[in-house]
Amino acid sequence: MSCSSVKKTEFTVKSVLVTGSNRGIGLGLVKRFLELPNPPEWIFATTRELAGCQSKLALKHPNLVVLELDVTDPNSIKAAAKRVEAHLQGHGLNLLINNAGMLRVTTMENENVETMAIVYLTNTVGPLLMSQEFLPLLKKAAQQSTQTGLSCSKAAILNMSSIAASIEVVPLWELRKTPSYRCSKAALNMITRCLSLEYKDCGILCTSIHPGWVKTRMGTEAVGTVEETTQAILKIISTLSEKENGSFMGWDGKIYPW
Amino acid sequence: MSCSSVKKTEFTVKSVLVTGSNRGIGLGLVKRFLELPNPPEWIFATTRELAGCQSKLALKHPNLVVLELDVTDPNSIKAAAKRVEAHLQGHGLNLLINNAGMLRVTTMENENVETMAIVYLTNTVGPLLMSQEFLPLLKKAAQQSTQTGLSCSKAAILNMSSIAASIEVVPLWELRKTPSYRCSKAALNMITRCLSLEYKDCGILCTSIHPGWVKTRMGTEAVGTVEETTQAILKIISTLSEKENGSFMGWDGKIYPW
Repeated sequence: MSCSSVKKTEFTVKSVLVTGSNRGIGLGLVKRFLELPNPPEWIFATTRELAGCQSKLALKHPNLVVLELDVTDPNSIKAAAKRVEAHLQGHGLNLLINNAGMLRVTTMENENVETMAIVYLTNTVGPLLMSQEFLPLLKKAAQQSTQTGLSCSKAAILNMSSIAASIEVVPLWELRKTPSYRCSKAALNMITRCLSLEYKDCGILCTSIHPGWVKTRMGTEAVGTVEETTQAILKIISTLSEKENGSFMGWDGKIYPW
Repeated sequence: MSCSSVKKTEFTVKSVLVTGSNRGIGLGLVKRFLELPNPPEWIFATTRELAGCQSKLALKHPNLVVLELDVTDPNSIKAAAKRVEAHLQGHGLNLLINNAGMLRVTTMENENVETMAIVYLTNTVGPLLMSQEFLPLLKKAAQQSTQTGLSCSKAAILNMSSIAASIEVVPLWELRKTPSYRCSKAALNMITRCLSLEYKDCGILCTSIHPGWVKTRMGTEAVGTVEETTQAILKIISTLSEKENGSFMGWDGKIYPW
């Protein structure tokens, strides 16, 4: 499948980094970037533990760089940022996709300090740490760009949120409670807002993405396939501008309530 | 000052517990409850470290019980819940006010794992743990009540949030960044929503309160005094019903956006 709906002239990302890219939406996004008529020169696919899947892809695609990175470990992030910087040889990083995340299936009764902490560390603190560490490379990309305004082909941070983040909607309550997950994603949306306010003047866009209810290891009751969803997300990514800076954008092009 | 604006017939809370009541809004709320024309039979004022201020008040008011309680420590919460249960002698707890909170003055650059974790543990996880542990006493209060619908005089959890929790507004960005605080309070609003959905059928109301921008140790640039603000909050508390269950209510009676 090619991303024929994303036109070459509309969307050229020179470099992109996707966390949590060993499976699910992360891996799907990496594949969609590889399939673009004008794929990125550098696709950094990071994963907590190096596994077979991306390495096989990397054999076929010299523009794909697979890196070990644990978003909960500041030293791991620092080490990965140094390797990315070395690969980019003076170029900035255009697009950081904070996709790595975790879900613990909990209830209001059995949620505890440990589950609240680990899910927050992974889903909320991780994206903040990533944004801090990759900020110099994102700023460099914005400075090197001749584009006006904000876009994902210039310099951007996308946070993979979830409709479960919506404090207004609190969707599917009876199906799944998971307060640690809902809290972490609501807080991630706040991180998006903070980043969007802090770095818009540096030319960096930041948006939360609701990827739909996708058939992954995390979303077993879901309706969309990873391929359909990531194709839709790539189309959305290609259209984001300063209008969507600091917003909560769905895979379907709709703005969702906080 | 008496809370003359809160009419006796409108508001009778038999028992209330306020966390973080050694200073600021917590202490102010305890004083306002004591000043009511029909004060609660039990006011449990909890604090991380027992200090002089409430103990002096307790000498004058036999209905005031000062208890040590660290909302970040599950064992401390369990111990306090046992003492509260013993005091109540078979009665339920009508109103739990999760007021204890902390603020670290951080920026987008110097926020780190430690500040994110401790602020989340105190401001978000603490209120969840408190609600879990005091749930049996809150349920008992609801069962013992003859009132229909939901109210703070029947059974309720109030979470002391902040307009800083609003992902939509992100107020006073240029004045104070504090991402850890903003994230923790946005996540606390999610806890409010989860609690409101989970326990409404048990007769327990749950609402987030934005207490205004108050002159406390935390809010040095604020405009309202603790006395003015806590009087306004008590008036709001007395009016809450199922309509405001799961909402984000300001000290001024306005509903704030998530």
